[in-house]
Amino acid sequence: MISIEVVLSPVLLHLTDVTDSNVVVIDILRATSTICTAIHEGAESVIAVKTPEEALELKLKGYITAAERDGAKLEGFDMGNSPFECMNGAVKGKRIALTTTNGTKCIEAVSHAGARNVLSGSFLNLESLSDWLINDNQRVVLFCAGWKDSFNLEDTLFAGALGGLIHQKTGCLIDCDAALMSIDLYECARVDLASYLKKSSHYKRLSHLHHEEDLKYCLQHSVIHEITGLRDGEMKKI
Amino acid sequence: MISIEVVLSPVLLHLTDVTDSNVVVIDILRATSTICTAIHEGAESVIAVKTPEEALELKLKGYITAAERDGAKLEGFDMGNSPFECMNGAVKGKRIALTTTNGTKCIEAVSHAGARNVLSGSFLNLESLSDWLINDNQRVVLFCAGWKDSFNLEDTLFAGALGGLIHQKTGCLIDCDAALMSIDLYECARVDLASYLKKSSHYKRLSHLHHEEDLKYCLQHSVIHEITGLRDGEMKKI
Repeated sequence: MISIEVVLSPVLLHLTDVTDSNVVVIDILRATSTICTAIHEGAESVIAVKTPEEALELKLKGYITAAERDGAKLEGFDMGNSPFECMNGAVKGKRIALTTTNGTKCIEAVSHAGARNVLSGSFLNLESLSDWLINDNQRVVLFCAGWKDSFNLEDTLFAGALGGLIHQKTGCLIDCDAALMSIDLYECARVDLASYLKKSSHYKRLSHLHHEEDLKYCLQHSVIHEITGLRDGEMKKI
Repeated sequence: MISIEVVLSPVLLHLTDVTDSNVVVIDILRATSTICTAIHEGAESVIAVKTPEEALELKLKGYITAAERDGAKLEGFDMGNSPFECMNGAVKGKRIALTTTNGTKCIEAVSHAGARNVLSGSFLNLESLSDWLINDNQRVVLFCAGWKDSFNLEDTLFAGALGGLIHQKTGCLIDCDAALMSIDLYECARVDLASYLKKSSHYKRLSHLHHEEDLKYCLQHSVIHEITGLRDGEMKKI
């Protein structure tokens, strides 16, 4: 039967058993939103790698390289971590090697932990993802990437949006305090998510880097219908 | 100048610099509520110890021993972890050696970290504690004990109540996502905190152990005026 647990930071992951669970990795601003966008835009796959060096090695095998640290694109790479860089045919049919400050590390961390599926979470495919998880009817772990291991608002709000939607559609019991908090926090913020997030630390960080359009894009709900999950070590349409 | 940060779990403590800060340890159900009550009831001090064995050693030095694990009093000790055990003169003038599942470990963990003060947080002395912290006008770290390293609702709600009160009284800026979340969560719950907490994991745990009176007592706001903080390794009235 479906159940919902929320992990608020990578540092807390060891407290939750992810074995045989559908784990949704959440890095709303921007890694998992960008991965969902890349797959929607026809990319064959996105491989999450830990270091820029690993991404560069994959360039030799024909991958597009994408690298971000502290919100900024790294020099010498094809792309940074903006969903807009995946548009207008830029990634169609391509494989992407992506390394980011938070999100890709979480995909990598959970990929060998015996999860049933490792999925990419974003507001962009919120509705489809909730339906997919409900249909699969297994334990769901919503894994917030946070910012450098710290709790953040935007990932928690998405956990609350997705957890709340599943709860609403199935009536499943929720016995995890972090899930209960996330759902209530999303209820506080949902009327105007963008305004609510203006006080968040990462929103301020990205605004300083002039990523306002990315922020606006990543908060759109259910405009993408593809589900993105790990298959043979790479994030693909599943 | 005063600022507010919230640590949601002991596992996240290393991400926050507590040096020269006023650290409020929060274990609402029940360790820090019980410590505040013991001091209010005239106890000379409460020493937080890690193990039941350490508490028993202190018995030889005249301490009252108090020990709780998983919500239950341990056999062979004078007290468990209920605030009611401190009433009716039971602890007046006495020193108490207390070991609990969560809260006392946090006091012990933070006691050698270079904090300016280590204080015991509870709804019972919410108003006085906010005034004391505002008067001292230093960085405030609200440190939630959680449950066995996991996030919990009741400690986060108190962090939100205290953080919100300080913010409201001083207009201080808040640049910590966990503090922003805690304050908003408390705003959701404050109308009827007891009903809100009925869905929490630890409330259910304590209810099963028939501690309903403790729960009700620990959620009372500002009925105690003493401030309890670490002096020479023991929690005392300061």
